[in-house]
Amino acid sequence: MAAVNKFYIPELAVVGVGLIGGSLALALKAVGAVGRVVGIGRGRANLETALELGIVDTISTELGAASNSDVVFLATPVLSLGEVAAGLAPHLKSGAILTDGGSVKAEVVHAVEPHLPAHVHFVPGHPIAGTEKSGAEAAFASLYQGRRCILTPTDETDPAALELVRRMWQVAGSEVVLMDIEKHDRILAAISHLPHMVAYSLVNAVGSYDRYEENILDYSAGGFRDFTRIASSDPSMWRDIALGNREALLEMMELFEKFFAELKEDVRSGDGRKLHDFFLCSKKSRDAIL
Amino acid sequence: MAAVNKFYIPELAVVGVGLIGGSLALALKAVGAVGRVVGIGRGRANLETALELGIVDTISTELGAASNSDVVFLATPVLSLGEVAAGLAPHLKSGAILTDGGSVKAEVVHAVEPHLPAHVHFVPGHPIAGTEKSGAEAAFASLYQGRRCILTPTDETDPAALELVRRMWQVAGSEVVLMDIEKHDRILAAISHLPHMVAYSLVNAVGSYDRYEENILDYSAGGFRDFTRIASSDPSMWRDIALGNREALLEMMELFEKFFAELKEDVRSGDGRKLHDFFLCSKKSRDAIL
Repeated sequence: MAAVNKFYIPELAVVGVGLIGGSLALALKAVGAVGRVVGIGRGRANLETALELGIVDTISTELGAASNSDVVFLATPVLSLGEVAAGLAPHLKSGAILTDGGSVKAEVVHAVEPHLPAHVHFVPGHPIAGTEKSGAEAAFASLYQGRRCILTPTDETDPAALELVRRMWQVAGSEVVLMDIEKHDRILAAISHLPHMVAYSLVNAVGSYDRYEENILDYSAGGFRDFTRIASSDPSMWRDIALGNREALLEMMELFEKFFAELKEDVRSGDGRKLHDFFLCSKKSRDAIL
Repeated sequence: MAAVNKFYIPELAVVGVGLIGGSLALALKAVGAVGRVVGIGRGRANLETALELGIVDTISTELGAASNSDVVFLATPVLSLGEVAAGLAPHLKSGAILTDGGSVKAEVVHAVEPHLPAHVHFVPGHPIAGTEKSGAEAAFASLYQGRRCILTPTDETDPAALELVRRMWQVAGSEVVLMDIEKHDRILAAISHLPHMVAYSLVNAVGSYDRYEENILDYSAGGFRDFTRIASSDPSMWRDIALGNREALLEMMELFEKFFAELKEDVRSGDGRKLHDFFLCSKKSRDAIL
């Protein structure tokens, strides 16, 4: 009986075989949930790495290589997704399901949906997982284990396609959450996009400190290294995210600035009680998500 | 021959047996470099934990318990060190060496030195190590392995005492660096104190975001958790550090604000090239300290 319900995608195409796309392919392969995986990308060297690592079964630099795929997963930087969808659209077979892993959703839906013919179903998605590494060699099968994956269906989303993509992410190990697009973009601005802006700014500020003729980053201990790990993330990917989720990100950057300015004022005025309360409030919130 | 040079402290007192103080005791014990360790503190429960864990050999809530100690290590919050030194001074034996692990040095030296009689030698120090945990149960013998320990001798520092403290930290596993006090405080403001202010502010800003009736911190993935780990650090300790290194910290907070404002402006204006360059510059600095 279990066999009747076994989830299986005969052919999956992954456009952009990096950490996100490659790990989905590996996760589905690990449980026998996919037949053939077609890896598509612009960089041949990365595709060949993906092939050697067994992440994909066949590779191509042409979007037409997805013409027989049942599911196509877009995992290129978010601002490229409209162009990729436009290039894919004429090749996709009837009933094909297109889904993506982009970290912003309003911009992606806006850019992708207009290009798709009625016989192709689009399900916008975002697995909340990642590391600061990129490229096919960074992919691993357990990346999505225990992670949330947010799907943001629109009025246009086909219910059966949504259900299939939901099951695909569950099979890959994720807990799937359905969410309104705007809510997704605002929550991600807060818990992911803002922290990256903060980390990038912090490393640049400290790295620019030139009072002494040496690189003071050499003095950094484990705390600084852990804290700034995300500042090693891919610049192109984050340029696209910052541009693609501009409004929500600016709102969060301003909220952060307000708190930081309040703290600075407490330091300046030497208000020990307020400083303690500020740190304690933060510690309590942080400890609650351990 | 090696035995002739074996480093050995007959009796060490540790005032404040938490992560920093307890780990030094454990590190020295692990290599047989200390005879008896006297644990001194205000909280009896923590002292009893330290005793049970074998971190110290005897405990007391009285500073007079250090009267026979050769080396006294102060590991209480930085703004308490002046008061602790004043309380210790009348009890210390002639030739006793007092050293500390405070994260700021100008304030500590200013607060401690006036209390000490001529027959007690003070060596200001700061091991660059730690975790977000605190208390005796957080201590471990390898905390200082491979870490830097900065000593900031003043004009008053006795050379023989400095040499002994230097060897003590080397024996505990650290690479010892001598540094001017002001330089220490400015570098630490940059690589440690500023990041903590940023992390505390970030968690408070995100935790305060109340557009949705749920705690959006629940959506945070590994990146956010790693990035904000230091926001779990002890509020009293960080209140003291912020107050004790105010001038240098304010300078760094302003430098950070300048970079963050620049980034915000690039997001607002949608300048993809500038965003990419900003992120790439940060990534290069960060990757260089991996």
